[in-house]
Amino acid sequence: MKKHILVVPGDGIGAEVTTVGKQVLEAIARKFGHEFTYDEALIGHVAIEATGSPLPGETLTKMRAADAILFGAVGHPKYDNDPTAKVRPEQGLLQMRKELGLYANLRPIKLFDELLDASSIKPEILRGADILFFRELTGDVYFGKRERLDEGNTAYDTMIYSKYEVERIVRKAFEAARTRNKRLCSVDKANVLESSRLWREVVQAIAPEYADVEVEHQFIDAAAMLLIKDPKRFDVVVTGNLFGDILTDEASQIAGSMGMLASASVGDNTGVYEPIHGSAHDITGKGVANPLASVLSVALMLDISFGLKAEAEAVVGAVDAVLKAGYRTRDIAGPTTQPEHVLGTDAMGQQILQLLQA
Amino acid sequence: MKKHILVVPGDGIGAEVTTVGKQVLEAIARKFGHEFTYDEALIGHVAIEATGSPLPGETLTKMRAADAILFGAVGHPKYDNDPTAKVRPEQGLLQMRKELGLYANLRPIKLFDELLDASSIKPEILRGADILFFRELTGDVYFGKRERLDEGNTAYDTMIYSKYEVERIVRKAFEAARTRNKRLCSVDKANVLESSRLWREVVQAIAPEYADVEVEHQFIDAAAMLLIKDPKRFDVVVTGNLFGDILTDEASQIAGSMGMLASASVGDNTGVYEPIHGSAHDITGKGVANPLASVLSVALMLDISFGLKAEAEAVVGAVDAVLKAGYRTRDIAGPTTQPEHVLGTDAMGQQILQLLQA
Ligand SMILES: CC(C)[C@H](C(=O)O)[C@@H](O)C(=O)O
Ligand SMILES: CC(C)[C@H](C(=O)O)[C@@H](O)C(=O)O
Repeated sequence: MKKHILVVPGDGIGAEVTTVGKQVLEAIARKFGHEFTYDEALIGHVAIEATGSPLPGETLTKMRAADAILFGAVGHPKYDNDPTAKVRPEQGLLQMRKELGLYANLRPIKLFDELLDASSIKPEILRGADILFFRELTGDVYFGKRERLDEGNTAYDTMIYSKYEVERIVRKAFEAARTRNKRLCSVDKANVLESSRLWREVVQAIAPEYADVEVEHQFIDAAAMLLIKDPKRFDVVVTGNLFGDILTDEASQIAGSMGMLASASVGDNTGVYEPIHGSAHDITGKGVANPLASVLSVALMLDISFGLKAEAEAVVGAVDAVLKAGYRTRDIAGPTTQPEHVLGTDAMGQQILQLLQA
Repeated sequence: MKKHILVVPGDGIGAEVTTVGKQVLEAIARKFGHEFTYDEALIGHVAIEATGSPLPGETLTKMRAADAILFGAVGHPKYDNDPTAKVRPEQGLLQMRKELGLYANLRPIKLFDELLDASSIKPEILRGADILFFRELTGDVYFGKRERLDEGNTAYDTMIYSKYEVERIVRKAFEAARTRNKRLCSVDKANVLESSRLWREVVQAIAPEYADVEVEHQFIDAAAMLLIKDPKRFDVVVTGNLFGDILTDEASQIAGSMGMLASASVGDNTGVYEPIHGSAHDITGKGVANPLASVLSVALMLDISFGLKAEAEAVVGAVDAVLKAGYRTRDIAGPTTQPEHVLGTDAMGQQILQLLQA
């Protein structure tokens, strides 16, 4: 198979982890006889520094031309502490999502057995948890109108959804539930928000078409609680952009560490594959970032964008085997990890590559 | 001391738990020689059924005349499943908050040692956690303009804050941090939202006045994760209405159960004291609801509205003693709880009262 992949490392540890991700793609191409070509582009803070824009036109052009995108992270502390900055790295990320029509963000939360101890949650609560989140990614308060009023003393954002936006993501979630345990939980705040009531109406209207799937509705506050109280009660979860952002970060504790979580952003065209973790400037350049979320993002790319199931399984299998062999990055090391098994970013990548070359 | 207390049971288990709360107030009055008088009023679904309005004028008048309000819960599944209902129980709650100017919702999250095992989080992560949340309660997307557009096919809500609204709650949080461990975490989503950037500006502008308090800012997604990963890193947390709703429900797992969490809503006038848990129609009328959140709400009332510290401590002490004696309601019973120690709502109330009468 011939595919063209754009690597977009972005900011902070993005470069370190996508380097490993790309090596895994190369190893898979060799092993399975595919021809993957690569290009690279800027986004976020590094793009602002180089071009003045967080999403340069050239990057967007390359994105549109690619069969899939391997993404790192965006963000920089400089902007976090300056609420008045007009140009911000995150604008690049949001604009990309919008321009590429990436309305469905899939975040699978599954614990590798070996990491049961890395979580703050009790093993008996976690064992067997397996959740697939569908986060809507191109609507909600992320993209509604926002402005300052009253000489800057008042600020508002608009939380907004149209029925077609809800319908397309909810359908994707129903379809996925069918291939899994046939349970769908829709999360909203319909007891307060009009946009949530619209969301709930759409889910209720579609549900009869998927009569084989059991549907429940939860308010976001209750969902945030239930997710850690009893993660096993969830199969597929579908929710809006903001609530999805919050719940999936929270759910990272179910997977032991944020450093293990991959995501796929898909829509009508090119898919973007990226870790859930951010740019993590506190550890940037230290060579300690966990590359496994990027590696698992590659697995999602192979599966979802290219339909290469065996290849995707080979990648996940390699991650599993490396964990079984006892290797850990710092973030997932536990009290029983042997010190010589705690690896940096590159060394962890090498372990994965060795297995894929074997 | 003479005080007039309005009891507003509301919906579902609200009546069962406030009954116990009121008995505790009566016991305290007897024990410490106070004169508490009581009245009762309707809110929520029961008020809609009786008067057509979720917050009848008579209730509001009684609320304004009271020295403090003991509140139950509002909500009914009937409305949750009918997104098109025009009159809803929650409107009564929100209107009350607005009318009484209850802009600060205090939610203390503290684990009774005996309940370490009731949580889904590991004991070593929880031990020593003690967080005081300040949730803004009369602004944000709860009160901004909302409507349907486009023949009902689009819906929006407005997330809106003005500087003075942020300033008054943030000041309360700083003041509280001074009396505790001098750490304040402000939670927002300033990397995306304009209302969050305004929030962050205000916190940054006020911080120098409280130079003895260490301030950090977290994005809501990261905060939702950190809260379960490492709850001990938090002392006082201040955040907006929506983010506070989500984080405090999630934080209930730190306290072992939602059934243990009390809250105080205060502002310029009468304070409202209520459990964080909702109306819980699934267990209503079964006599199994945990009354301890209502009992602990009484403790907050005695302390915050009446300045009766010793009385508040007596109530908290009674809860502690009853837990130490091994008594549990169903929601906080663990594998080691003796079956005969699992009590219903009234029996648990009796245990508390016996201790207060001793
Ligand atoms: C960086 C930020 C804007 C982004 C978001 O909120 O969507 C991130 O948290 C994510 O989840 O991809
Ligand atoms: C019932 C609901 C409207 C309410 C809220 O969201 O404020 C509740 O969840 C709470 O936290 O008091």
